[in-house]
Amino acid sequence: MSDHRLQKNAPIGVFDSGVGGLTVAREIMRQMPNESIVYFGDTARVPYGSKSGDTILRYSRQIASFLRSFRVKAIVIACNTASAYAAETLAAESDVPVIGVIEPGAVTAAKTTKNQKVGVIATRATINSKIYTQSLHAIRPGIEVYDKACPLLVPLVEEGWLYDPVTVEVIDRYTSDLVRSGIDTLVLGCTHYPLLSRTIQKVVGEDISLVNPASETAKELHQVLTEKDLLSTSKEPTHKFFVSDGAKMFRTFANTILPCEVEETKDINIEAYGE
Amino acid sequence: MSDHRLQKNAPIGVFDSGVGGLTVAREIMRQMPNESIVYFGDTARVPYGSKSGDTILRYSRQIASFLRSFRVKAIVIACNTASAYAAETLAAESDVPVIGVIEPGAVTAAKTTKNQKVGVIATRATINSKIYTQSLHAIRPGIEVYDKACPLLVPLVEEGWLYDPVTVEVIDRYTSDLVRSGIDTLVLGCTHYPLLSRTIQKVVGEDISLVNPASETAKELHQVLTEKDLLSTSKEPTHKFFVSDGAKMFRTFANTILPCEVEETKDINIEAYGE
Repeated sequence: MSDHRLQKNAPIGVFDSGVGGLTVAREIMRQMPNESIVYFGDTARVPYGSKSGDTILRYSRQIASFLRSFRVKAIVIACNTASAYAAETLAAESDVPVIGVIEPGAVTAAKTTKNQKVGVIATRATINSKIYTQSLHAIRPGIEVYDKACPLLVPLVEEGWLYDPVTVEVIDRYTSDLVRSGIDTLVLGCTHYPLLSRTIQKVVGEDISLVNPASETAKELHQVLTEKDLLSTSKEPTHKFFVSDGAKMFRTFANTILPCEVEETKDINIEAYGE
Repeated sequence: MSDHRLQKNAPIGVFDSGVGGLTVAREIMRQMPNESIVYFGDTARVPYGSKSGDTILRYSRQIASFLRSFRVKAIVIACNTASAYAAETLAAESDVPVIGVIEPGAVTAAKTTKNQKVGVIATRATINSKIYTQSLHAIRPGIEVYDKACPLLVPLVEEGWLYDPVTVEVIDRYTSDLVRSGIDTLVLGCTHYPLLSRTIQKVVGEDISLVNPASETAKELHQVLTEKDLLSTSKEPTHKFFVSDGAKMFRTFANTILPCEVEETKDINIEAYGE
């Protein structure tokens, strides 16, 4: 088999701080069913959203080093916080394409908004990074960005209270200022939030368009692989799942949201990988 | 200076998954003002409550190894989850006394209850460990234990919504079954929860006694040090604070709850310490 064909059929590395990135893996499987995936969820150190940028970069480098051990042909950072703090550095340090979720989400939001007022909800670290504001302004400086950190939403998703009155009240508390500002587009800036999209839509009203960066990221990945002639021709793609803690719990959750059966998930000591 | 006097004036090591253990450090400072403290908060890897027992034990060993580098005369595990999974092993591996928060809390709950019905609220990992049930039954087998995992309470404390209607509703949701079971005593089985004690008391009613293990743990430490003739005679105790991430944010929080001024907090790469 030629080197190039070997490279085409190499897996795509996808990582997240935990389970949220599975919403991105799911989109890749749907849009590119021939591709193999190696997924890593940093469940021992989740959440990233409350950590400092330095720590997030250090963790992301360890994970990239782990994924490279599978000779991946591309790395997708399926976590907004890690994309904010590590995408640029990892891209500079890597010989394969590195794709974060921020840029595709920002591009779609800029295309969607009609009144140039875009809202962003995300974890505290992503909001503090101001990455969505920078990305939106790089596309069109006139866009007004209204953002809000929502630290309770991930635990509410993990508690399974997706349609609960408490969740409705918390979302209302977090988004009421954004709605009052007149936004017509709202970016779900954390990979957990698409699981709340029906509740969020109900609270903010039908007039506001929700942007889910997961789906846009898969489209961007497809374009990059096409340009580099790296789309897989495999008829039997394989998916591997690794976590830093709680492999069994992860597998149960993964099987509820992925279109394929996750048969095995392995626990990895991620701290042992170089930075 | 004699070896024994050196040992008496050695610091006490206190650790927690983050800031919650400061409620225990505060009690030690109040009850034993001559003692020096080395505090470690594992803020990079917080929370422990959703991790597996193996991972919690591994992290606790790294921290004990870090604290031993200060030649501490005792180690206090100021975290219910780490106490549940690591107290016994660390005690067996250590040449200094190791004190967790579970046992003192259980002893006080057993003394307090009149109808032998005790409630326990804590993180998911602490509840799954069944450690409070085991400890209470070891004291008095007839005690009926009603427990409930409350994963949203730590993020609500960290959001600062201590007296918020959302917090009242969430506490009511978590505790209503316990109250219906007729408990007369409720153990606050997570070091963050004492910061919610007024709200919890309001929700469960004045007839239920709340037990705060932090205060009981400091009393237990005093007794152990007295028995071993290890109480400090120092007139100028010093306190040192270390975290694995976000030293500045930690210092701000610490200064709001401690009786002393925290002048410096250092970031430590805790993964570099042996297990």
